[in-house]
Amino acid sequence: MFPLRTFTDTEPPPSTKRPKRITVLGATGSIGESTLDLVGRDPEAYEVVALTGCKNGTRLAELAIRHRAKLAVVADPESYGDLTAALAGTGIEAAAGQKALLDAASRPADWIMAAIVGAAGLKPTLHAVRQGTATALANKECLVSAGRIFMAEVARHGTTLLPVDSEHSAALQAMTGTEPERIERVCLTASGGPFRTWSLEQMAAAGPEQALKHPNWSMGAKVTIDSATLMNKGLELLEAHHLFALAPEKLDVLVHPQSIVHCLVQMSDGAVLAQLSCPDMRTPIAYSLAWPERMHVPNERLDLAQIGSLTFEAPDLERFPALRLAKEALAAGGSAGTVLNAANEVAVAAFLEKRLGFLAIAGLVESTLAACPDLICLGPQTADDVLEIDEETRRRARGWLPRFA
Amino acid sequence: MFPLRTFTDTEPPPSTKRPKRITVLGATGSIGESTLDLVGRDPEAYEVVALTGCKNGTRLAELAIRHRAKLAVVADPESYGDLTAALAGTGIEAAAGQKALLDAASRPADWIMAAIVGAAGLKPTLHAVRQGTATALANKECLVSAGRIFMAEVARHGTTLLPVDSEHSAALQAMTGTEPERIERVCLTASGGPFRTWSLEQMAAAGPEQALKHPNWSMGAKVTIDSATLMNKGLELLEAHHLFALAPEKLDVLVHPQSIVHCLVQMSDGAVLAQLSCPDMRTPIAYSLAWPERMHVPNERLDLAQIGSLTFEAPDLERFPALRLAKEALAAGGSAGTVLNAANEVAVAAFLEKRLGFLAIAGLVESTLAACPDLICLGPQTADDVLEIDEETRRRARGWLPRFA
Repeated sequence: MFPLRTFTDTEPPPSTKRPKRITVLGATGSIGESTLDLVGRDPEAYEVVALTGCKNGTRLAELAIRHRAKLAVVADPESYGDLTAALAGTGIEAAAGQKALLDAASRPADWIMAAIVGAAGLKPTLHAVRQGTATALANKECLVSAGRIFMAEVARHGTTLLPVDSEHSAALQAMTGTEPERIERVCLTASGGPFRTWSLEQMAAAGPEQALKHPNWSMGAKVTIDSATLMNKGLELLEAHHLFALAPEKLDVLVHPQSIVHCLVQMSDGAVLAQLSCPDMRTPIAYSLAWPERMHVPNERLDLAQIGSLTFEAPDLERFPALRLAKEALAAGGSAGTVLNAANEVAVAAFLEKRLGFLAIAGLVESTLAACPDLICLGPQTADDVLEIDEETRRRARGWLPRFA
Repeated sequence: MFPLRTFTDTEPPPSTKRPKRITVLGATGSIGESTLDLVGRDPEAYEVVALTGCKNGTRLAELAIRHRAKLAVVADPESYGDLTAALAGTGIEAAAGQKALLDAASRPADWIMAAIVGAAGLKPTLHAVRQGTATALANKECLVSAGRIFMAEVARHGTTLLPVDSEHSAALQAMTGTEPERIERVCLTASGGPFRTWSLEQMAAAGPEQALKHPNWSMGAKVTIDSATLMNKGLELLEAHHLFALAPEKLDVLVHPQSIVHCLVQMSDGAVLAQLSCPDMRTPIAYSLAWPERMHVPNERLDLAQIGSLTFEAPDLERFPALRLAKEALAAGGSAGTVLNAANEVAVAAFLEKRLGFLAIAGLVESTLAACPDLICLGPQTADDVLEIDEETRRRARGWLPRFA
């Protein structure tokens, strides 16, 4: 019998499955909306337990009504009025504030999308993970800043952690079926950003207008700047390290301007498995939602004959020092990821406000890493410990900002 | 818990495994030698049951001694003297002839490499498959000519069939973990051969010297000519159809001159999984030998930054009609694959003898397919039935040769 066939033999017919209970933390953001777009295509298959948003109570209420959610929570108490007004008479429970957010993350669900952006996502995602079911992870900070304690919670609760980032989803897809000890190298691709071919002199003069022109993906300002510095790829190396328990020397970055190949995994027998797709976040979200199966997504299919050529080049660590800094933080371990990420957030915010030049982003991060060995050597035990290191780094980096202006 | 981890948790430690009993049919050919190269790197892990060869009794004896085989069989009875002379005093059993070959294929083994070339491989491979263990398939005819009856035997005996062809091994690797109904399309890549950019006029004047210059792989003359006509890729479509039970419309070919990506599998969620490697048959052989695990092969690792660019184009069915004919045979079903393959063998042999022009290869195949509906509609029940259709096609095609000269 052909080996692939056995999988379906042991699967119950789809009709006997009970609906999957799902919660979306960060439902009004781009990942949350895409997740609900997929859920809405097969409403019988899902039961929406809770949806949460940051400030947009009206939009959150719309989504909660459309997807027949049991609970809708806004993080910002000031948006509670909008939410309750829009939910009046629907029977959908409404709540607001940080504690309500954690309660939503703890409501029993089979699958939770953790798509709250930034450090604010850390505690709700930890609550989600503690359910011991499946968590789809779209929040960077859980791994970059709090990787060690976060993965310890994942292991403790036997949670299935499914990455949503296109590169990490690609890595998981390409690794499936291969034993971890047979994986020699995981190579994340980077578009190279808008400055891929620029000289250091040209980059020194670049402002937010130039840096915000990402060639392939439409994203928020922070992550677009991170793509221009390649810090984005550096942070993804830290994520991959924690997610897949891969030693730093097994992780690599390849510049691939077309952003079609998302990850390449080198196996011990000479084979490389790669995942490719058109740029559409619904593909990795769908993979996390249907895992270990796959669902149907009617998005654009890849046409390589039409694309014609895929190119690859080694990243230039001289022109993109942020990637070198991330590799150094990866090798340093401890809280270096937390410090790197916090310093970078301060630097990018200052660049977007035109208080810092483009090359000074990496400059501030490097100085902060060098000046904070006391923070880097800390081994935080809780999310609050991590947030404290994060906050202290930001405080110091802000203080050093004027030196780089 | 991260989902990939569970695999190793349930695996016994390697040291407790008993040696894998293996047999190599076609041990003195290129695939057989590469297989034994891998086996010889970890002799404790394998017990060599039988090795068979065609005519080279001396080389077969060398391999049998080196790998401590129990049995060595030459197909050609005239080579029996060389074999027994070289094995004298070793205690290794020697035999010759067709019946001995089938006996070797039937000796109990956990894994059998079926690497006998051509129609001669059909019966021994069927015997191997009837053991109900694992067969690594490197013989094309079992699928191209006898696909239906061959796969029925595989299913009847619950045999694990592992393709060795680089494209089909790549397909299996890329499909692993995805349910068959979630696979939308399997795209095999073709180098395009030496005439990829030639006009029909140029090809009309091409002789064996030009056609034998394959850009990436060093192979035998027959398969190199098949690469130049793209018939090779057409035959691989027929193989993939039977191997993976894929409908003809789910199979496709993409020209990729660098021969780095071997197969691309389009999933229902928009993801494409691809397998890539440097051109080295030890990678797919190793995958079949270690399946469902992977082994270590110290061959060249892929360096995409050094390669720089991978290009893709749709195949031109006007200039490469052999691929169109194979697609038509695939759609026709019945014994069209047997007729296509037999007519092509006659045509390629005549081309290599300079009795036929390059474009007349496809011309003879097309005329044979058109003139043999009586053979195409046959539903053979046994290997002998298939061989009879194959022989009758060859007889007719040889008769039609002068018309194309």
